[in-house]
Amino acid sequence: MTRSELFNSIRKKKSYLCVGLDPDIDRIPKFLLDYEDPIFEFNRAIIEATKDFCVAYKPNLAFYEAHGARGWESLQKTLQEIPEDILTIADAKRGDIGNTSGLYAKTFFQQLNCHAVTVAPYMGEDSVRPFLNFPGKWVIILALTSNRGAQDFQTMTLENSKTLYQQVIEKSRSWGTADQIMYVVGATRPQELVNIRTIIPDHFLLIPGVGAQGGDLKKISEAGLNNQCGILVNASRSIIYAAAGEDFAEAAGREAHRLQVQMAEILQHHTL
Amino acid sequence: MTRSELFNSIRKKKSYLCVGLDPDIDRIPKFLLDYEDPIFEFNRAIIEATKDFCVAYKPNLAFYEAHGARGWESLQKTLQEIPEDILTIADAKRGDIGNTSGLYAKTFFQQLNCHAVTVAPYMGEDSVRPFLNFPGKWVIILALTSNRGAQDFQTMTLENSKTLYQQVIEKSRSWGTADQIMYVVGATRPQELVNIRTIIPDHFLLIPGVGAQGGDLKKISEAGLNNQCGILVNASRSIIYAAAGEDFAEAAGREAHRLQVQMAEILQHHTL
Repeated sequence: MTRSELFNSIRKKKSYLCVGLDPDIDRIPKFLLDYEDPIFEFNRAIIEATKDFCVAYKPNLAFYEAHGARGWESLQKTLQEIPEDILTIADAKRGDIGNTSGLYAKTFFQQLNCHAVTVAPYMGEDSVRPFLNFPGKWVIILALTSNRGAQDFQTMTLENSKTLYQQVIEKSRSWGTADQIMYVVGATRPQELVNIRTIIPDHFLLIPGVGAQGGDLKKISEAGLNNQCGILVNASRSIIYAAAGEDFAEAAGREAHRLQVQMAEILQHHTL
Repeated sequence: MTRSELFNSIRKKKSYLCVGLDPDIDRIPKFLLDYEDPIFEFNRAIIEATKDFCVAYKPNLAFYEAHGARGWESLQKTLQEIPEDILTIADAKRGDIGNTSGLYAKTFFQQLNCHAVTVAPYMGEDSVRPFLNFPGKWVIILALTSNRGAQDFQTMTLENSKTLYQQVIEKSRSWGTADQIMYVVGATRPQELVNIRTIIPDHFLLIPGVGAQGGDLKKISEAGLNNQCGILVNASRSIIYAAAGEDFAEAAGREAHRLQVQMAEILQHHTL
């Protein structure tokens, strides 16, 4: 999916919502456990209920690998349920030496046919480059994450006065284009989003931390939006676990719709 | 597996060799493709031929995930073939927010029953801690890797005059004990191993980069050994692809034996 296709989808749906598909077997409604593949049934219903309100889905691999081979099958079936015009992000946070990263890239881009994959930058350029060899596919590099541990290394100051996450962004932006690379930027500190926009005005940012993690959608959006929208805001638990009973999908749809309405309102006051 | 059990195994076998099980379907002998599960057949033969000469096996997850659900089955069957007294390392390089890392930990430590897993430090303490809640299991944190990209961020100097990888080691060593945490330290620069030993004299180091990547076993060992051995040296491609024909396992065994003999010689001149 190209950047302009993604932008068109955002304009059409008046939404920059990404729904995190993190199906925890201990949290999904109990009645689903009677199905042959509860994880898939849960996702299928969530997708059906939310697909009109979001432009991306982000399955986190951990929730599928936890079930071994069966989990991979649930993931594959889930990905096939997602409409073609919606961006699919494998939240895998991979990164390894070149030939190994190349294999991961094939897995996520070819075998699973996802549009995008999240990648950890610690091992440097050759751990990321193999993911950039697939036309129309996206690498989403961890820059500033939304968890407490982001303070341990990402925000440390380097000898050159930059923080590590700034350095990661500045260095890695030359590895590809804004049509290939996005960045994960946590929603906990809007001011940092403003600073990041001065380094990368054009790149899309994947912003987790709104919803269960507490970030404020309006402030975050105003800090991150650019003239091609340029942000995808992810919510996982607040949507998919909006209700625990038989109405879980309906409740998820309502919560996704609520966020989409807020996004439409924000977009209306922003020049695209 | 405890640190003393690992040390006993090293003394008994006179080896600190770790064999990387990275079965690339394009590189394994062609005749194996006739088997129902070529990856497993390859690994099974490699394990049978090398198990007397090594103290650890390290399957890299990328090579299994590349085959989806079938790959996970090959991995599970492979792990069951490994004798119980040999350390099993899931080379997964995972790291995510707390609840997600917790799921990965369950996957590798409980579902796959590995002894150890490699973890990327970029997301900080809460991305690593969930892996430390499993008695007798090991977290192996990426510190200084052996690839070219290690120079991009890991060796950058921080405001406090330490390199990022030194900072990763100094900070993370307080998250657990030397009975729970090991570090990945590439074999490309022996002097850096000497420096690392001043920060963590007791921890085990997993050292890739000997063999196909060119590190010198003797120099590396002398720089890294401590009084409980304290190093595991990994070789993958130089062992498992030592020959491409029907004699691949025999050749792998010969290469593993050759390294074990060198290690026995090195250990003989070192006070344990």
